Amino acid sequence: MFYVGVDVGGMSIKLGIVNENGDIIFRDKLVTSKNDSQEVHAIQIGEKVNELILNSKIDKCLIKGVGIGAPGGVKPQEGIAAFIPNIPWVGLELSKIVSGVTGLPVKIGNDADVATLGEVLFGSAKGCDNAVLFTIGTGVGGGFVIDKKLYQGKGMVAEVGHVTLRQNGIKCGCGKYGCIEQYASATALIRITKEKMLENKNSNMWAFVDGDIEKVNGITSFACAKQGDETANLVVDEFVANLSESLMGFMNIFRPDVVIIGGGISKEGDYLVDKVKAYCKKFNYGYPSALVPEIVCAKLGNDAGIIGAASLFIQ
Amino acid sequence: MFYVGVDVGGMSIKLGIVNENGDIIFRDKLVTSKNDSQEVHAIQIGEKVNELILNSKIDKCLIKGVGIGAPGGVKPQEGIAAFIPNIPWVGLELSKIVSGVTGLPVKIGNDADVATLGEVLFGSAKGCDNAVLFTIGTGVGGGFVIDKKLYQGKGMVAEVGHVTLRQNGIKCGCGKYGCIEQYASATALIRITKEKMLENKNSNMWAFVDGDIEKVNGITSFACAKQGDETANLVVDEFVANLSESLMGFMNIFRPDVVIIGGGISKEGDYLVDKVKAYCKKFNYGYPSALVPEIVCAKLGNDAGIIGAASLFIQ
Repeated sequence: MFYVGVDVGGMSIKLGIVNENGDIIFRDKLVTSKNDSQEVHAIQIGEKVNELILNSKIDKCLIKGVGIGAPGGVKPQEGIAAFIPNIPWVGLELSKIVSGVTGLPVKIGNDADVATLGEVLFGSAKGCDNAVLFTIGTGVGGGFVIDKKLYQGKGMVAEVGHVTLRQNGIKCGCGKYGCIEQYASATALIRITKEKMLENKNSNMWAFVDGDIEKVNGITSFACAKQGDETANLVVDEFVANLSESLMGFMNIFRPDVVIIGGGISKEGDYLVDKVKAYCKKFNYGYPSALVPEIVCAKLGNDAGIIGAASLFIQ
Repeated sequence: MFYVGVDVGGMSIKLGIVNENGDIIFRDKLVTSKNDSQEVHAIQIGEKVNELILNSKIDKCLIKGVGIGAPGGVKPQEGIAAFIPNIPWVGLELSKIVSGVTGLPVKIGNDADVATLGEVLFGSAKGCDNAVLFTIGTGVGGGFVIDKKLYQGKGMVAEVGHVTLRQNGIKCGCGKYGCIEQYASATALIRITKEKMLENKNSNMWAFVDGDIEKVNGITSFACAKQGDETANLVVDEFVANLSESLMGFMNIFRPDVVIIGGGISKEGDYLVDKVKAYCKKFNYGYPSALVPEIVCAKLGNDAGIIGAASLFIQ
């Protein structure tokens, strides 16, 4: 069998046909217009799926279904894209419309949620029963696979970035204070980097950004820390502590086989993972003989969206 | 069909036969001796189950199985009581031994976990698909029912008390700092009460405990707050904030139908629940149209252990 995966992004929509091994064997892309209604967007997705299948020359009856991952709140049981702010879609009957156009069954999920499923079926957590994904970007998203199934609940689940890490801490966009997102996102890493740079004008990070603090990004501190800059190491240590504390909470909640770190920061690979492991080991909780979760970086990269969405029909 | 539930406590072991409505129709009790080996304890449980069934005059073939809840770490898949410190049992092959003695299938679970299942099947969360239980006592325990099934993972899960609430906060017995348990347990409530009393010698709480601060318990602040004592109200407000912040994390993780507050504090009923609801409403996260979880107090009380354990065969 084959599976269609649709990865809805703010700028474009990526589509692919995925085989049973999790390989994307055909791809296409769709750019929607803000001038069109959200219902037209849904129809265009359906038409693009039809076109993709036609071009692939795969018999449509070999396509099990169309999985769609979207960046925001979905109601999976009802097939509704409830609130996808970056397009924007609000209360869009996505499954119904795409299914109508394609004649195929459609399932939808949040993009971080489906990425988690993709990593468990075909990526860094292959073969695991229970997995937690943290995806670190502007914010912190996440997903849970529980007993080999993606947890979707009644929608808008796994908002790991909006669990409190520091009660009464920094105000978050969500309205609460001290959310994980304020301490363990790429945005937070950049904030901490700038703070520490302003405290230490001798740090090599200044040279790294040509003296322009606005050039600081998620790489600045890690790159300079590797070169031995003391201030950069302080930044990395603080970020690792924030991330590790957050991850340990989810270890104590799920005691999963594996915790997956995704997002741009996962490019730091073992350099990051080793530090997080060391921190977690120091404060590991659990009865004697309790499972110690593995910590890994995500593997599927930019394909996580398509593969993960298609996986909604593979799990 | 009927189901045997076994509730292992530090002081005694309670047993009951539960019917399909979740009623305990026969009960018995077993006191084990610290002089006996843990294997003897397991044999005694099996023998007591046989005796209970015999006395009930229910045909053994109508008993579907024996569920056992224990206060500590269990490995449900292997049927092993991995670490039950209060008895103590370590690596006890509980399911195998009890099954051998009774000739019945046996399942085991952590006591807070099975209590959650009991509440979902027969108590305060009846009919819910997804539920989170917080049980507030000396520490903070918990359990999750996900898509109508108890989440047990590979054991030692749902350690909700050991999720960080205040990074770098009070040191916890688990080795970490700032765990929920240090701020939202009955132990924490008593600590906060004493702190605030020492700050304000005019509080009515002093009269309530006959001037003896060692008489402070989990009721002191709530009782005096209801009578209008300002300091007691500060204590309750702080505790409610700590508990609500913790609960909101789990709402954002699971977006469950219901969050259940269990333990002695649940006797405060609506007085507590209304305050928690008000706090959570103020900081509610979620996309427009996201499910707002109900917040309730546990209902099964002292029977939660037996009913919950039996429920391992009913779910």
